[in-house]
Amino acid sequence: MGLPFPHVLRLRVRYSETDQLGTFYNSRALEWFECGRTELLRALGTAYADLETRGVCLPLVEAHLNYLGRARYDDLLEIKSVLAPAGKASFRFDAYVVQALGGAPVVSGHTLHAITNAAGKPMRCPAWLAQVLETARPPAGGVAA
Amino acid sequence: MGLPFPHVLRLRVRYSETDQLGTFYNSRALEWFECGRTELLRALGTAYADLETRGVCLPLVEAHLNYLGRARYDDLLEIKSVLAPAGKASFRFDAYVVQALGGAPVVSGHTLHAITNAAGKPMRCPAWLAQVLETARPPAGGVAA
Amino acid sequence: MGLPFPHVLRLRVRYSETDQLGTFYNSRALEWFECGRTELLRALGTAYADLETRGVCLPLVEAHLNYLGRARYDDLLEIKSVLAPAGKASFRFDAYVVQALGGAPVVSGHTLHAITNAAGKPMRCPAWLAQVLETARPPAGGVAA
Amino acid sequence: MGLPFPHVLRLRVRYSETDQLGTFYNSRALEWFECGRTELLRALGTAYADLETRGVCLPLVEAHLNYLGRARYDDLLEIKSVLAPAGKASFRFDAYVVQALGGAPVVSGHTLHAITNAAGKPMRCPAWLAQVLETARPPAGGVAA
Repeated sequence: MGLPFPHVLRLRVRYSETDQLGTFYNSRALEWFECGRTELLRALGTAYADLETRGVCLPLVEAHLNYLGRARYDDLLEIKSVLAPAGKASFRFDAYVVQALGGAPVVSGHTLHAITNAAGKPMRCPAWLAQVLETARPPAGGVAA
Repeated sequence: MGLPFPHVLRLRVRYSETDQLGTFYNSRALEWFECGRTELLRALGTAYADLETRGVCLPLVEAHLNYLGRARYDDLLEIKSVLAPAGKASFRFDAYVVQALGGAPVVSGHTLHAITNAAGKPMRCPAWLAQVLETARPPAGGVAA
Repeated sequence: MGLPFPHVLRLRVRYSETDQLGTFYNSRALEWFECGRTELLRALGTAYADLETRGVCLPLVEAHLNYLGRARYDDLLEIKSVLAPAGKASFRFDAYVVQALGGAPVVSGHTLHAITNAAGKPMRCPAWLAQVLETARPPAGGVAA
Repeated sequence: MGLPFPHVLRLRVRYSETDQLGTFYNSRALEWFECGRTELLRALGTAYADLETRGVCLPLVEAHLNYLGRARYDDLLEIKSVLAPAGKASFRFDAYVVQALGGAPVVSGHTLHAITNAAGKPMRCPAWLAQVLETARPPAGGVAA
């Protein structure tokens, strides 16, 4: 316990992530979601880089995004990531991005991941991984994102 | 009539769009969807660049992606784009990306767009734009993507 | 002979490649250079994807860019690529990007590439590759980019 | 002065920044350089976002990169940024990226920037900006990057 639910990562919008409308380009949100997943898994003691080294990959099978507000160059954002309950051969991460200053919502969504070996063949979640991730499940009663 | 339903754009996967798994990085699909929308609108005689010049912006409010198969560096892809019926103040584009050679599915999804002025304030679809886009609606009876 | 010197590729600036200044973000030019190299090599009959399949990689060791003018969303660009004479264990590609309409310069530069195996170990240029590339050398007397 | 010479920013390689060779894609280094410049300017008390708000833009006119070593997904990097002496109407930032663990070099280079107003018209460095930046100049005798 004592684990962060949800995990919160702070990052700033890069100039390279803006577009000519003056806000972030839509696809960048998926890259921020990835940063959030990376740090959530590290906080659980299982860096994703190590997962791949051990032959476990988590390729995306689905992504959904709701664009809720603007974020401009250099804005400080909070990426809130939650590992959601999912099936035996998949994971779902929920993500919620807000302005660190004031909390205005920016983008929310989720990514659904298959569990595969390095060759892309689906596999069941290894027991050691299931055990690690179990500690990240929100307590019954839910989590306010 | 005589318009392409759906519009088909061919492009190759760039090296910059791959990741260490050897396939395309997930967020690139949203950039391909954008290329498809751009060319669909041009085919209708209304380049998106002209829309913004005339003060009409179409920022994303929602995106959904289903990752269906691999695409590697230099693979030739077909981006199929369809303008879907939507509400009075929004548009939806459906996208379907397949391998040009053999037709294996790569990614499908949609983007939902608000209609705003340059300052981001929502507006109703201008009559001149509604008229142009009407020509792109699939005939009743639907379109096989 | 009869080969295009320089090779010319046309592409449009993507919305995702713009930034809040309204022109292309600086790093995109390196991605355009890559597209130019890819098509130059294909025109020579040696797709880069095949090179890597045969165990020959061309990682960058140096890049240089001169930003010469603006390019906005949807502008049609010409990427002119030339294979420059280089040492026995490296290649240099020169690139020159202009507006297709009017020819205004956008960005010029070069990339210098090592020749390595898949593990990143430097190797001499294989004879079969040297022979292919020889056909791309500009004739003595030079080429106006 | 107690100011950081060079300024050091730590960041991790994102999965989205890798390519199929398993290291970072070449253009990402220019985005890391940008992150370094942003934090160097902030450390001087002049956030670049504020510069643009005050009508001063620093578009790139030149970039140079030397690729020195590998960096993989999740590697922790140090971006070292130095404001170099330059002419009256331009700035040069030198950048040096190393592995935070062990210090192995990854990429070095520089970017040269014009000083323009929001419309892209060159201007001389405003006095207030020159004064701020003066504090960032390395002391005579130089700085080991």
